[in-house]
Amino acid sequence: MDSRTGLPVVGMVGGGQLARMTHQAAIALGQSLRVLALAPDDGAALVAADVQYGDHTDLAALRTFAKSCDVVTFDHEHVPTGHIRALAEEGVKLFPPADALLHAQDKRIMRERLGALGAPNPAWRPVAEPADLVDFGAEVGWPVVLKAARGGYDGRGVWMVADAAQAADLAATLLAGGTSLIVEERVALRRELAVQVARSPFGQVAAYPVVETVQRDGICVEVLAPAPDLPEELAVAAQQLAIDLATALGVVGLLAVELFEVADPAAPGGARVVVNELAMRPHNSGHWTIEGARTSQFEQHLRAVLDYPMGDTSLTAPVVVMANVLGGEPGGIPIDERLHHLFAAEPGAKVHLYGKQVRPGRKIGHVTVLGAELDEVRTRAARAARWLREGHQ
Amino acid sequence: MDSRTGLPVVGMVGGGQLARMTHQAAIALGQSLRVLALAPDDGAALVAADVQYGDHTDLAALRTFAKSCDVVTFDHEHVPTGHIRALAEEGVKLFPPADALLHAQDKRIMRERLGALGAPNPAWRPVAEPADLVDFGAEVGWPVVLKAARGGYDGRGVWMVADAAQAADLAATLLAGGTSLIVEERVALRRELAVQVARSPFGQVAAYPVVETVQRDGICVEVLAPAPDLPEELAVAAQQLAIDLATALGVVGLLAVELFEVADPAAPGGARVVVNELAMRPHNSGHWTIEGARTSQFEQHLRAVLDYPMGDTSLTAPVVVMANVLGGEPGGIPIDERLHHLFAAEPGAKVHLYGKQVRPGRKIGHVTVLGAELDEVRTRAARAARWLREGHQ
Repeated sequence: MDSRTGLPVVGMVGGGQLARMTHQAAIALGQSLRVLALAPDDGAALVAADVQYGDHTDLAALRTFAKSCDVVTFDHEHVPTGHIRALAEEGVKLFPPADALLHAQDKRIMRERLGALGAPNPAWRPVAEPADLVDFGAEVGWPVVLKAARGGYDGRGVWMVADAAQAADLAATLLAGGTSLIVEERVALRRELAVQVARSPFGQVAAYPVVETVQRDGICVEVLAPAPDLPEELAVAAQQLAIDLATALGVVGLLAVELFEVADPAAPGGARVVVNELAMRPHNSGHWTIEGARTSQFEQHLRAVLDYPMGDTSLTAPVVVMANVLGGEPGGIPIDERLHHLFAAEPGAKVHLYGKQVRPGRKIGHVTVLGAELDEVRTRAARAARWLREGHQ
Repeated sequence: MDSRTGLPVVGMVGGGQLARMTHQAAIALGQSLRVLALAPDDGAALVAADVQYGDHTDLAALRTFAKSCDVVTFDHEHVPTGHIRALAEEGVKLFPPADALLHAQDKRIMRERLGALGAPNPAWRPVAEPADLVDFGAEVGWPVVLKAARGGYDGRGVWMVADAAQAADLAATLLAGGTSLIVEERVALRRELAVQVARSPFGQVAAYPVVETVQRDGICVEVLAPAPDLPEELAVAAQQLAIDLATALGVVGLLAVELFEVADPAAPGGARVVVNELAMRPHNSGHWTIEGARTSQFEQHLRAVLDYPMGDTSLTAPVVVMANVLGGEPGGIPIDERLHHLFAAEPGAKVHLYGKQVRPGRKIGHVTVLGAELDEVRTRAARAARWLREGHQ
């Protein structure tokens, strides 16, 4: 309890942009997010009043931090499960709990659990030796998707494997390096979708509208909310799937369910979804909610971990488009000048910069545009992101 | 320039809720507001990373703070004009400039200037001795409104004077205490309105829709956006007046123009406006813009002082109602529990708490509700504010 405000203290492990935007939402709730950061130039450390420094893999540092908070949550999935368990046994409230978070940390555990729950997995298999991968490819057809069970994100830790020869070499190398692997069929997807749900310790669940996520080189570049031309049956089924998973896994806080949409003439609406990945925190596919939903995913995550009732998830406009801003080559037009140009060109674009140094391909911010007509809103969002990335049209 | 982000540093003198909410808006722009606060439990000091401590009337403290910033702006009107002038002469950029801010600091100077500009003043007069007040009352009719030229807010520094006897006594007492006074006719107002405009150093001006402000005991309790049933001619005239004043006074940043609406059968639309007060900063009458306009007044103020192009000021819903939350008696249901009840009752209400200790009548936060139908939205906003104030329906 913060004696100055009479409110419980929420701590977030990790000082990246998710903690930065969660702090922004915390301010409205009378809170000041307590952040465990690695360095003073972490995005959240630049803006939060209450920052401690320490490594999230260091149990002693985590313990000191956690014991100063009423509830602890996470900006990323990299805190060792054993540490979370140890602190929970010492009486610290950590959300999501270790037994839930595990399914966002380890893809093999996730696939096994989804299978047991009857949730829609692609064909998949653990890869303990190269032959597992080669056999799987022969069965389901090449190419196949090889994944590190742990630690991958934004396209890292994922390999498209073309044939048996490549499979044997790559699997041997990765297994020799100690990487735990699974392989999945390459799903014949129409597009990618995502659903955000939030769940409180009490068990209240709130789902956001289903969105379409557009990837380039394995990185999300654009989110369209709501997912255009999504049959109502499929939207409801995807939301229900996410709600069921949040409940079955015991998630507290946000759960992002990334989905593949697959054509299926036998399914209602002519398509079905397959689960791609899970994340248990505010997620890039939900950044549109800051302006595009009545309650942002960051406020919702705080409400969930505080066990407050969930906020209204409805859209604030018929069409919302979020475009990520990836860093280009360093140098060129200064970021301050790029902002000027962007604001002059798009007075309605909402900008979110994360306080990061520019590096090629690094997410340095995002822009959101709201409107009534998808093509127009999408064009404006892409143009706004280009101004920030390139400094010119 | 902040070398970590490549962006200019904005400093705000004063650490109250306006600085707190400006910091929240700054985060999205890649900024971290630098705050000059009085104490660590100031609302903004609780949440901002970059806080210096010092008194705004201490020139040395102001100078140290100002010279660490690229541009300095204000959370309140209490910085001495001479200090602002002195720092400006030393090369510091301060917005609004002293010559503009003076009109929000001194009501006599404001009335004189409005008169010279042909802007709509009530009948008024400076009060140098008790007879000035008595004579004015006899001329325009009792009661009249006596005002301290400097330092009043939220009903303080304003006296309703009933008759000549009271006038003579009160004026003598106040003048003996060194208070500079003006007197104004009691305007036969229909209601109070307000307009926010922002102006950049370049001279770009953006106006928000005209709102109705509802006062109780001299304190704003409710803001209705847009002002209901306002004739289009009057709305345009009020916005134009605010734009003209911002330009004529050389305002940089936000200008809030508080207005009386007065019936006038001869005017287009059957009514005209009279200027009540000016404020040159984000203002309580503009808190509704956080969720209710595409660009919040806090972001707009930052864009203005940074000389960025102005953001879109359109409404995000047909009806937006903001209700202030005033502190009740200390004790009773803890604020954390009140939030629970409020969120359960009104999942769509947007809450803003300022991190303040509860004191009777003190503004501790506000709530905003958006919707389509005024009576319903107003009822919901009032109910949400009551939950926070009372902890019960």
